[in-house]
Amino acid sequence: MKVSIENINKAFESRIRLGMMSVLMANEEVDFKELKRLLQLTDGNLASHAKALEKEGFIEVEKKFIGRKPNTTYRATELGKEEFAKHLEALEQLIKGNR
Amino acid sequence: MKVSIENINKAFESRIRLGMMSVLMANEEVDFKELKRLLQLTDGNLASHAKALEKEGFIEVEKKFIGRKPNTTYRATELGKEEFAKHLEALEQLIKGNR
Repeated sequence: MKVSIENINKAFESRIRLGMMSVLMANEEVDFKELKRLLQLTDGNLASHAKALEKEGFIEVEKKFIGRKPNTTYRATELGKEEFAKHLEALEQLIKGNR
Repeated sequence: MKVSIENINKAFESRIRLGMMSVLMANEEVDFKELKRLLQLTDGNLASHAKALEKEGFIEVEKKFIGRKPNTTYRATELGKEEFAKHLEALEQLIKGNR
């Protein structure tokens, strides 16, 4: 029996990151509040996972003001989209292996 | 857009645990050496993840002697099989949502 886990990317291991990347794959860009609402996260949770994904180069973070209010938006990078697609592919192989 | 990550079980988040449970779902029981070889793990890595899965009640650990040699074998519990199947189902939903 061969179980390959090499292509499963440690950077996407947490369900929060799985959720974040899924949202960012389906949307051009999503702001902090929306991402927090969609995934039912705390500010701290979202900020720390976003920082880690940004450090990997998988997402881009833009901070701007809308009127007087600060606004943070996230976007998946091309690298992020590619690596996440590979990660999902590896998960799918593992799932198929469990059938 | 609805991304649900609640059913993704934190106990199976790490790829090592995904690999371990996959092997244990496909085999009645597997010993330490075989699991280590199959997943290319270190002793410490495998032992710590096995301990965590045992604590959750998802695997059973049996320690015995074969001749003079100590032998550790692992088996997925019914609870472990059920919860892992649910986990894979949730991952599959997330993957489908990314299509």
